[in-house]
Amino acid sequence: MYRTHTCGELRLADAGKTVTLAGWVQRSRAMGGLTFVDLRDRYGITQLSFNAERDKALCDQANELGREYVVEATGTVKERESKNNNIPTGGIELVVTELKVLNAAKTPPFTIEEETDGGDDLRMKYRYLDLRRANVRKNFELRHRMAIETRNYLSAQHFLEVETPVLIKSTPEGARDFVVPSRMHQGEFYALPQSPQTFKQLLMVAGMDRYFQIVKCFRDEDLRADRQPEFTQIDCEMAFVEQEDILQMFEGLAKHLFKSVLGKEFTEPFPRMTYDEAMRSYGCDKPDLRFGMKFQYLTPALSQGEGGMPLTPGPSPGERGADLARGHGFKVFDEAELVVGINAEGCAGWSRKQTDALIDFVKRPQIGATGIVFLKWTEEGLKSTVDKFFTPEQLQQWAERCGMKQGDLLCIMAGKADKTRKQLNELRLHIGDLCNLRDPWTFSPLWVVDFPLLEQDEESGRWHAMHHPFTAPKPEDAHKLESDPGSVKANAYDLVINGTEIGGGSIRIHDRALQEAMFRVLGFSDADARAKFGFLMEAFEYGAPPHGGAAFGFDRWVSLFGGRSDIREFIAFPKNNAGKDVMIDAPSPIDAEQLKELGLEVKG
Amino acid sequence: MYRTHTCGELRLADAGKTVTLAGWVQRSRAMGGLTFVDLRDRYGITQLSFNAERDKALCDQANELGREYVVEATGTVKERESKNNNIPTGGIELVVTELKVLNAAKTPPFTIEEETDGGDDLRMKYRYLDLRRANVRKNFELRHRMAIETRNYLSAQHFLEVETPVLIKSTPEGARDFVVPSRMHQGEFYALPQSPQTFKQLLMVAGMDRYFQIVKCFRDEDLRADRQPEFTQIDCEMAFVEQEDILQMFEGLAKHLFKSVLGKEFTEPFPRMTYDEAMRSYGCDKPDLRFGMKFQYLTPALSQGEGGMPLTPGPSPGERGADLARGHGFKVFDEAELVVGINAEGCAGWSRKQTDALIDFVKRPQIGATGIVFLKWTEEGLKSTVDKFFTPEQLQQWAERCGMKQGDLLCIMAGKADKTRKQLNELRLHIGDLCNLRDPWTFSPLWVVDFPLLEQDEESGRWHAMHHPFTAPKPEDAHKLESDPGSVKANAYDLVINGTEIGGGSIRIHDRALQEAMFRVLGFSDADARAKFGFLMEAFEYGAPPHGGAAFGFDRWVSLFGGRSDIREFIAFPKNNAGKDVMIDAPSPIDAEQLKELGLEVKG
Repeated sequence: MYRTHTCGELRLADAGKTVTLAGWVQRSRAMGGLTFVDLRDRYGITQLSFNAERDKALCDQANELGREYVVEATGTVKERESKNNNIPTGGIELVVTELKVLNAAKTPPFTIEEETDGGDDLRMKYRYLDLRRANVRKNFELRHRMAIETRNYLSAQHFLEVETPVLIKSTPEGARDFVVPSRMHQGEFYALPQSPQTFKQLLMVAGMDRYFQIVKCFRDEDLRADRQPEFTQIDCEMAFVEQEDILQMFEGLAKHLFKSVLGKEFTEPFPRMTYDEAMRSYGCDKPDLRFGMKFQYLTPALSQGEGGMPLTPGPSPGERGADLARGHGFKVFDEAELVVGINAEGCAGWSRKQTDALIDFVKRPQIGATGIVFLKWTEEGLKSTVDKFFTPEQLQQWAERCGMKQGDLLCIMAGKADKTRKQLNELRLHIGDLCNLRDPWTFSPLWVVDFPLLEQDEESGRWHAMHHPFTAPKPEDAHKLESDPGSVKANAYDLVINGTEIGGGSIRIHDRALQEAMFRVLGFSDADARAKFGFLMEAFEYGAPPHGGAAFGFDRWVSLFGGRSDIREFIAFPKNNAGKDVMIDAPSPIDAEQLKELGLEVKG
Repeated sequence: MYRTHTCGELRLADAGKTVTLAGWVQRSRAMGGLTFVDLRDRYGITQLSFNAERDKALCDQANELGREYVVEATGTVKERESKNNNIPTGGIELVVTELKVLNAAKTPPFTIEEETDGGDDLRMKYRYLDLRRANVRKNFELRHRMAIETRNYLSAQHFLEVETPVLIKSTPEGARDFVVPSRMHQGEFYALPQSPQTFKQLLMVAGMDRYFQIVKCFRDEDLRADRQPEFTQIDCEMAFVEQEDILQMFEGLAKHLFKSVLGKEFTEPFPRMTYDEAMRSYGCDKPDLRFGMKFQYLTPALSQGEGGMPLTPGPSPGERGADLARGHGFKVFDEAELVVGINAEGCAGWSRKQTDALIDFVKRPQIGATGIVFLKWTEEGLKSTVDKFFTPEQLQQWAERCGMKQGDLLCIMAGKADKTRKQLNELRLHIGDLCNLRDPWTFSPLWVVDFPLLEQDEESGRWHAMHHPFTAPKPEDAHKLESDPGSVKANAYDLVINGTEIGGGSIRIHDRALQEAMFRVLGFSDADARAKFGFLMEAFEYGAPPHGGAAFGFDRWVSLFGGRSDIREFIAFPKNNAGKDVMIDAPSPIDAEQLKELGLEVKG
């Protein structure tokens, strides 16, 4: 037994007890004949005290302890003279009578403090030291807690956690598969699952009724900060359900997590918004509703079919109103398909430097806009950057349509409809940041519903499944699947929190003929569809129930609840942007013997 | 909404209610003008009733339902005239007023009943139909329950579930790794983990204190019935612990699972047995203690070092006694290193045919023995198959040493010590089966402790780690690690239940110099050890705490609790003995394009 207590549990009530603690030396201070050592473990920090007058040898021993040494200390708990109210153990200290060094430590390459001096690369190479930092460790306590609460909630709702295989079949669709060469069947490969989609559907055919799994998934994609080659999802499926049943169930899960993990109670139903409305009012399918700044249209925006963008319509015909932007000689507007603005409340006082910075922001190549037209409403009235083209009355019409009041700043962008909405969405989020409207501890959940079933690749003209090829068209649209694919909506939905897509799902196809039609629309040959998904289509013929489900990005959900955007902070041993684990040095070459056994040769 | 209730929940108290059920047609019976359909879902079976007099069209519709059709039925709950007390819903039936076929079904290739007519291959190809069988489904309810109980128990003990990476580095040691070619780093490979061993140790270095994970692991081995290329383990690690702390903790877990899952309470501590004692008394390191039949030695068995088998010693010198077997002219015994028997109580009455069958059993090539000497104690006294070599008094000495009483049958084997013990172990288990001493619902847990650290390969003379290369020698033996490796014991332990190794673990090395010495003994060059495990040894220099842990084979534990020995019955989508998933047809060839992107070529 190395310890009787942890470093986080002793209190004043324990004074007088003889105890043994074990942990890491956080810091030590020698002052006169006294030495104080902060001993740290996962549970907290306890002060050890040594007195040279009482025991010189022991005090000398304490003075030799380096940072991060692992020690075991026995002594008596004593009330502290100067208490530290910042930590729960701050009322006491351990007057040490016996000290044992369990392991020495080299000086760590960065400080083990919440604010560390270690850069990203160094922290990842020594991730086991990085994880000692209290704020990093807390991310994993949060992750554990969320997993436990998720499982207990779903289990209470009669979901069974069923493990689906990791070594499956390669069916590249969208992202690339990671593959695993088979030694026993040379020239053949397993693939790692991008998701357990087909297996969870088979579990519904199998009558499991309600399935879930917190499961690793794999995608061989080029990486970004919020993408990892392996990631974890909460994967769920239910039989005999309609969309409403699924939304209710997972709204329940989300509310349970909010309450049990963050102590936040949502008594009202989560708002819902159609995909069309989200695109029209926020220019994206995952609007951040912590703040307003809805899009306001100065042109009678496009209706379905106009401008080649049938999937991102403008306001409904009734809302269109007059064209307030075009036909006044301002070329940028006159040539635009769309002129649309957002009203930044209370920002009329922003300086020229500040508004120029906004223009620089949208001109960055990632956004690629050409500029912003501003309309300020200050004490002196309305003032725009395009005064020479528009009369005060016309500007007044803008202000009215956009719901401005004195003190506001209207930011207007113009151009091709689809692109302009995307750019204005970026600007909206940026202004939200600048105005501190995106507090990470305020949560604004939203269901986005009625997604289109398909989207068309601009270049190839090919249709792609917006969610995946197993999503069912809405029954009333099914007949148009092959004749007018672009107009078909799906019972597909996303859960969006604070502008982050936490997850989503759909009602699935459970009929062989419909699934075959879907594959045809997606450009699969019959032979190809059968080779890749024949087992699923065959299963549909043996009594497949109606079913649907959802999957939630667990890394992302945890990071959202942890108030951070970088999911790597919530993954114990993440890969870097080159897909490398720099700590263990993976991937790496393998023995020639291993390659030979697999019947493979590396080219080049 | 497809249903208001499940097929398992309606009772007499619901009589009169209008409800809707959905499920699969288990069977239907038309009798006179009445039709009864058993509707099945995961939760149970409810009888639907149709009356041709009341509604001929509806009854005709019901008569057309085939097996495994998916239907939705609305009607009124009614008390049944002839109740079925075998099922919880047997008191009622649903008098159907509306019937909807949600999906038709082809006739399944085997019957969806507990006793099916489907062979193994067919069941695996249509696993989604196999999983509909109630007894198969129950295995997954059990698995889910055990996972939830494991997590809640460990969570309450302050273990954090931390996900370790699946894409790691190849460090083949013992079994082969599955590898994953990297597209971004051509010629380099990830490997799938055989266990998260090094990561969980790093988590201890990271101060996580208590870690667990229910996690998929991978081994590219040739398969057997109880081996799968991917399997699941309950993986655990604790810092600042000694062996005793770990045994207590996981004995607690096992008792919790016994109680919460099977309702079996173990109030006493689990028995413990040293590895040496297990080998001596049962000839294996995982004895089945549901029954006795301990080994009884007629020769003064070998002590350490004799016969080249330092790791499987005989009785301690004090127990040795006289040689009752050799020196009487019976060549088989005279030339044997060891003569050892087991006393099958109450089996003296077995016929010649029965004892011949035992001889045939041990002569099978998997066991490879030459025969058995029997000594029967019937009403007529002692009678052996070697009467011409031994006097009645000598046989009486055998009977005494082996604790025989009238009615017993002593089965004696002789030969090389190590081999003979193994063979007698097989015979003991076989007789246990024949005598029904191995009831799957009787549970006999056991800790086997004090394993040797290393075992020597007979052919190459190389030393192998008995558990794995991270296991620490017992501190008192550490000095002999390089001088006398075979004599070094480890604080390593296995949890054995009913002769099945459920799991095991050890105290780990947490010191760089000792780990380096261990790698030297195992024949690693310094460069090789550094290339493969340098990150771990470096981590040991930054303040590694003493730590240890255990891992439990989850598939095997579940199958044990499910009363079955074939773990595939407890894996939703298992591979067959050729490593194939015959349902989805994996592994399979991949596109030339995919291979090219990976920079690989298939040879041959």
